Amino acid sequence: MAIGVKALPFTFVVHALAIVGAILVLVWCIDFRGGLAWEASNKSLIFNLHPVLMLIGLIIIGGEAIISYKALTLRKEVKKLIHLVLHAIALILGIIGIYAAFKYHNESSIANLYSLHSWIGIAVISLYGIQWIYGFVIFFYPGGSTGLRSESLPWHVLFGLFVYVLAVGNAAIGFLEKLTFLENSGLAKYGAEALLVNFTAVLTILYGAFVILSVASQGPVEDDYSYSAI
Amino acid sequence: MAIGVKALPFTFVVHALAIVGAILVLVWCIDFRGGLAWEASNKSLIFNLHPVLMLIGLIIIGGEAIISYKALTLRKEVKKLIHLVLHAIALILGIIGIYAAFKYHNESSIANLYSLHSWIGIAVISLYGIQWIYGFVIFFYPGGSTGLRSESLPWHVLFGLFVYVLAVGNAAIGFLEKLTFLENSGLAKYGAEALLVNFTAVLTILYGAFVILSVASQGPVEDDYSYSAI
Repeated sequence: MAIGVKALPFTFVVHALAIVGAILVLVWCIDFRGGLAWEASNKSLIFNLHPVLMLIGLIIIGGEAIISYKALTLRKEVKKLIHLVLHAIALILGIIGIYAAFKYHNESSIANLYSLHSWIGIAVISLYGIQWIYGFVIFFYPGGSTGLRSESLPWHVLFGLFVYVLAVGNAAIGFLEKLTFLENSGLAKYGAEALLVNFTAVLTILYGAFVILSVASQGPVEDDYSYSAI
Repeated sequence: MAIGVKALPFTFVVHALAIVGAILVLVWCIDFRGGLAWEASNKSLIFNLHPVLMLIGLIIIGGEAIISYKALTLRKEVKKLIHLVLHAIALILGIIGIYAAFKYHNESSIANLYSLHSWIGIAVISLYGIQWIYGFVIFFYPGGSTGLRSESLPWHVLFGLFVYVLAVGNAAIGFLEKLTFLENSGLAKYGAEALLVNFTAVLTILYGAFVILSVASQGPVEDDYSYSAI
């Protein structure tokens, strides 16, 4: 499905949106929501870790991991290492971010795992982990046979993008869920905070779209036209 | 990004999920939520048209439109006609469905266009309309030059899938939003209706995934390997 344009300009957009997205979620959770804490009597500060770690970790660093083959002009082996290390960081931050949500719920006597956001979240982090382990074993160490690698690669790309799109969609669901709770508790529906959260969600979706666009476009070297370098 | 498997089995899964999804949303809106009505003193019945028309129209019929090239073994011209007619039906049902949401809000004095769901919804229906008009003019009547067609096709596929994924994601957001409102009004978080709505949302996401999987797989005739028959 490769489109006939260079990926590099799209990857610049990804980097720019990454910076803006990280700033927006920090401004929301620190300036508007009171800050971040692992232990606190104000349990909301524990919750605030959740959107920060999920957006900056799973979505932003995960997105940069995905586009590493298209964004960088390094040797394939180096890009592969960057790809798997960034994904590992994204996965670990995602797990800590999900743990923070459970910690907040448990310490505030809020029910766990009843919402669609939590269901999809558990599915995403599980599939992300499975995808990472499969990728590591087949493409890095010890590595599958040439036949298995070349058969696996399009599925690795397709399944990886599926999990990533699910993660981005679930981030949007999470922003809406939290904002709906806040609006039910009296937050102004057209106020500054509501607009900030909605714009952060829209930017997250755009970030995901440019990640996909980068993958669908042509990489910096000729062998990127084929699957072999994805 | 075509994967080396036949699309046909995936298209059967799409059809099956379409039937289940349509039944689930009808059971929810008719059995659990009291039914459907265009004019009613119980304004909730007007709202109920919204999920029914969006899911059966925009998502299900829209998904069938997308996979028509992979699901049918007809001449390309016939499949193109089916593709554009199904998309037109999906678009019209989507517009009526969105109108029903506004009608419900206006007759119930509920604010319009403050939520992420509404923002993305307006974006989706606008982009869907633009995509349909562009496709009609370039690929059907009067039709662009051969060069323009072949240059446009990968973008038509990519942009169309982007809009569709956005629609599926926004459907999930909509299910969560409505259920959150109901739960804030006392609906049991682990009750039958909550599970039904969450399962419908999960099924909607699976439907979208199998639509994409069908598109990424190989069509029934050899020329489906190229863009020319997508």
